[in-house]
Formats: sequence, structure tokens, C-alpha cells
Amino acid sequence: MDEQGRARRPGGRSARLRAAVHQAVTDLVGERGYGNFTVGEVAARAGVADTSVYRRWGNLQALLGDVLLTRLNARSPMPDTGGLAGDLRAYAANVAREVTGPDGLAVVRLAVALSGEGQQGLQVRDALLADRTRQLQAMLDRARDRGEDPPDALEVLDHLLAPIYIRVLFDTGPLTPDYLDGLVDRLLA
Amino acid sequence: MDEQGRARRPGGRSARLRAAVHQAVTDLVGERGYGNFTVGEVAARAGVADTSVYRRWGNLQALLGDVLLTRLNARSPMPDTGGLAGDLRAYAANVAREVTGPDGLAVVRLAVALSGEGQQGLQVRDALLADRTRQLQAMLDRARDRGEDPPDALEVLDHLLAPIYIRVLFDTGPLTPDYLDGLVDRLLA
Repeated sequence: MDEQGRARRPGGRSARLRAAVHQAVTDLVGERGYGNFTVGEVAARAGVADTSVYRRWGNLQALLGDVLLTRLNARSPMPDTGGLAGDLRAYAANVAREVTGPDGLAVVRLAVALSGEGQQGLQVRDALLADRTRQLQAMLDRARDRGEDPPDALEVLDHLLAPIYIRVLFDTGPLTPDYLDGLVDRLLA
Repeated sequence: MDEQGRARRPGGRSARLRAAVHQAVTDLVGERGYGNFTVGEVAARAGVADTSVYRRWGNLQALLGDVLLTRLNARSPMPDTGGLAGDLRAYAANVAREVTGPDGLAVVRLAVALSGEGQQGLQVRDALLADRTRQLQAMLDRARDRGEDPPDALEVLDHLLAPIYIRVLFDTGPLTPDYLDGLVDRLLA
């Protein structure tokens, strides 16, 4: 995304627009929760014209998806420790840190909310999942290339990410390092 | 809940009020999604006074929680098959049928939304979780009384319910009988 921005105009208006709009969305999600604001309010907060937001992102769902994916990629990058168990442990720790952080719950709830925003929301959600799944798959492929026997990406979602997300969404239990490592052990057993 | 209604006035105004308001909430969730309507709109749809709704439920979150719990208890009762594996398989099948039903996703998303509705929402969510956990625990206690070695309720949430909910929320995979039985086998392994 940064590279796209730079290609348009290095450090220029396009990159500044993107940064200001992303910050405005993050602030508004923190203050009001996902979905409780409009493109007009985002634009006003960012100090840009509504039309600039619509021209670049098309609609609110696409903008929310862009913000979400950028955050996830920046804060929960896929690890590359040289071993499958180490990669999965580091990944689980990254995800847990992200979702228990100051506005991590807002991010998880935003992902859930996209599912209920009609066809546009579903497209954004599916594109976002596809992007993250590609990155996860690359990590699992590296393990296979080393001769390890990795689970598939859907198993990682079912048995590593799902319990983490549900514990955070419903506040049913802590995400201690022991708990997270136990999920990985169980996944690899 | 029915018994409470009957204790107040058998088949009377109280039971009719409750049925009409519950139906109005279910319809509005289906049409607009959780959270996108007010107590006033529920009352108008049900043909009752706003004050009747406030007097009985106190606030919108408590009303939504009551509707949710009533649905869950009616449609996903805890099974009692005489064996732990059979109970868990039947439970997983019930939950999967519920969340993939016509407005099952709206129900899951409502539970998630309660987490973001401030203190009132959190209280309702926690009361709802406590109620369902008590029922689940009773099922697990029956297994222990029979001499079986059941998982604890949080393990059932982490490894049986979490993957089901996440697959439905993000549409990442089907909930086939084989898949659901596999989750139970994995939980009991």
C-alpha cells in the first residue's frame, strides 16, 4: 500500500490523504464502534473532501476493510522463525497481542460487522480473508518445503484463531502464553 | 420463561405482550440487523406502548438478551443421550443447525454486538453466557456422575463452539456432520 502511495506521488498528497483518513477511521471506531459513522464524518475528521474518500475507496465498507488489513499486516505480520511450531507460536502470540490491545476488540468486531453489511461488506470481508489466508498459506508452504507436515490454513483458523477470537469477543478466558502454546501443541498433535 | 408468564396471568396479557415483543425483535433483527432499531420501533411493531417494554425489560440490551436466550434454549436444548460423546455430538449438531438457520447468523452477530454496547450490553452478555454455561456444565456433570471423563465447559467453548461460530461468521467452511463429529473426536482425544 505504501508503495502504491509512493508510485502516485512520493510522500505527497496521496500518502497524506491515506494516512489522515486511516487515522480518522481508527479514531471513530474507537469512539463510536464500527458502523456508527459515515463517509462524511470520516472526511470531516480527516480534513478532506467527501469526494476524495469516495474516489479512492468507493464506499465505507471498502475503506474499513483497507484500514483493517493495513493494521493486521502491520501489527500481526506472519513470522518466519525457521520452524513450524515456532512460526505458529509466534503467530498466535502476535494475534493475541493485537486483539487484546487498546482497540483490538474494535478490529475483531469490525471484521464481524462486515459480514452483516450486505454484498459490499461481504466482498470486502472475503478479500480481506483471502489476503490473510495467502500469507498464512505461504508460512505453511515454507514448513512443507522444509519437510515438515503443516496443518492446512483452515485448520489454523478453526483451532488456533477461532478460540482466540471467541475468548476475546465473549471475555470467557485469558490468553496466557501457556494457553496459546497449548493451542499450538493441540493443533500439531 | 413460559412458567413465569403463566404465574403472572395464565395465557393473559403478560404472555401476549412477551410473544408480540419477541416476534417484533426477531423480525427487526432479520430486516435491519441487530442494533439498528429502537425500543420505540419494537413497541410500534408489536402494537404495544413503549412504557410496557421499558417496564418489563428495562432497556433494549436486556430485551435483546432475553430474546436471544429464549431462542437458544428453545432451539438448542442441551441433549441427554446417556453418553458424553453422544451428548456432545447432538449438542454440536443442534448449535450448527441453529446458527446456519434462516436468522441464525443474526443471532450470533447479536451476541457479538452485545459486547460492544457498554456496561448494560456486557451485563446482558455475561448473564446469557452464565445461563448457557450452567446448562452445559449440568450435561458435563452427568457424564462425570456416570464415571466418564468430560472436558470442562471452557474447553467445549474453545474447541467445539468457537470453530462453529467462526466458520459461520466468516463463511470459511461448511458445517457437515463429519466435520462436527470430528470436532467432538478431537475434543475427547
